[in-house]
Amino acid sequence: MSLVVVGSVALDTIETPRGRADDALGGSATHFALAASLLTKVRLMGFVGEDFPAEHVDLLRKRGIDLTGLETKPGETFRWHGRYLENMNVRETISLALNVFGEYEPVPPPAYRDSEFVFLANGSPVHQMQVVERMTAARFTVVDTMDHWIESDRPALDALLKRVQAVLINDSEAHLLTGLDGIAAARALLDFGPHYVVVKKGEHGAVMVTPDDTFLIPAFPVAEVRDPTGAGDTFAGGMMGCLAEAGDVTPAIMRRALAYGAVIASFNVEDFGVRRTAALTPDEVEERLEKFRRMLAF
Amino acid sequence: MSLVVVGSVALDTIETPRGRADDALGGSATHFALAASLLTKVRLMGFVGEDFPAEHVDLLRKRGIDLTGLETKPGETFRWHGRYLENMNVRETISLALNVFGEYEPVPPPAYRDSEFVFLANGSPVHQMQVVERMTAARFTVVDTMDHWIESDRPALDALLKRVQAVLINDSEAHLLTGLDGIAAARALLDFGPHYVVVKKGEHGAVMVTPDDTFLIPAFPVAEVRDPTGAGDTFAGGMMGCLAEAGDVTPAIMRRALAYGAVIASFNVEDFGVRRTAALTPDEVEERLEKFRRMLAF
Repeated sequence: MSLVVVGSVALDTIETPRGRADDALGGSATHFALAASLLTKVRLMGFVGEDFPAEHVDLLRKRGIDLTGLETKPGETFRWHGRYLENMNVRETISLALNVFGEYEPVPPPAYRDSEFVFLANGSPVHQMQVVERMTAARFTVVDTMDHWIESDRPALDALLKRVQAVLINDSEAHLLTGLDGIAAARALLDFGPHYVVVKKGEHGAVMVTPDDTFLIPAFPVAEVRDPTGAGDTFAGGMMGCLAEAGDVTPAIMRRALAYGAVIASFNVEDFGVRRTAALTPDEVEERLEKFRRMLAF
Repeated sequence: MSLVVVGSVALDTIETPRGRADDALGGSATHFALAASLLTKVRLMGFVGEDFPAEHVDLLRKRGIDLTGLETKPGETFRWHGRYLENMNVRETISLALNVFGEYEPVPPPAYRDSEFVFLANGSPVHQMQVVERMTAARFTVVDTMDHWIESDRPALDALLKRVQAVLINDSEAHLLTGLDGIAAARALLDFGPHYVVVKKGEHGAVMVTPDDTFLIPAFPVAEVRDPTGAGDTFAGGMMGCLAEAGDVTPAIMRRALAYGAVIASFNVEDFGVRRTAALTPDEVEERLEKFRRMLAF
């Protein structure tokens, strides 16, 4: 089934205790699409500036990602410069320039309007809602958000959550929205509207709740995390890629989808930016998924 | 098979954001033994003072715990007063009086000397080694430790780790010992001697590594943690109870053992001190274990 992602396409400068990357291909939609493309066809929507390197477009296209919705606008591409501290759980933003990403309203191209699976990567809930209203064929829309929007535009976010089937959110953001922690926060989020709530806990995995189901998934343990940037979007891409390929959403399919998300995210953090995920093959994913399954059996 | 635990028996005063308990039955050996007694026969070794209430002795005895090795000494029982901060991940010690617990050398009574499974709860590595040397029938000895001993008596701890089959340790302590994090820290601990390394991550579960195996187990999610005190020792008790009852240790049995540990620990944190575990039945444990298994399947 058709899957579309709306989010940022960026040039990231990343510093971690394990190294550094300058002006590397990044952004939520990029990480998502590269992950999802391992499992299904994916359509990308976003804005880049005139400075966006052609090699990055080639890389995405070679992975079969539909770029009809990737618009080049006058100005510069979204740039982020961040630094991770020693334990990789804390990061500081050194500079951020939204550039063209902040200026335009996302209008899905006609060729995307039949998409049934939609992922709204972190962004303004007002823009996210515009996409929801325009994607009239959508059957399963998932939204990601972050502390900034929870604090600055709560009414728009609340309205949006009533219109989507699932929310994917960090544990700290789940706390910010509900005032609760852990499984209690996840269950409370069901009252905001979505039928599926996935709370991401970084290196500690994720938990999914529905009104009748609870699913726990640890993170696949990697020997060395080199760069955690994009792990959450890669996780989302693996999840949505699996769902769209299955063409249906049930708690059982959702569980498998989250396992794919965890596995692909574990590759992504092994190198800077999208380097590892861009080189990843479906066979490597399947192999690690089996290994993961064995790590969880008792 | 026979299982013995050596550790503290204490009177705990505990404050958490959910309430308070005063002079409640606590201590590592107590939490461990109550958990293990749900699965097997367990022998307890420790010291209490003349002030130790008879009702606590009755409670332990009613659970079938062998108290031959629980010695009453002149003086007062080990007392700890702690307070947990809002998120329950940080606690501060308000007062600590080792009393009789700090003064005596653990000498296993003759009736315990044929024990094949031994758990050395957190304590001085010098005392722990004395037990190792005296428990000559032991086939599987597991040691727990904490930051205090890692910092104050590293040579004794290093020597001890060469003499035991498994180590059970918090993630922060694994970092302190190895300088590494996550799975890398767990694997590095194998070089210290033990064939099984279990790293506990509190609300995020645990990971076990052997030279050939990796096993991930999340924590069973509870709606409200009222008091995390003793969760680690309860986890250890469930684990060792399962192993001793099986009478053998293989990676497969170890995986099941850790699942029992996680489940019993999840009950323990639902109420103050040992209140919930002391009232727990094997049927409740089995029921939650099945629920847990379903939460992890994909």
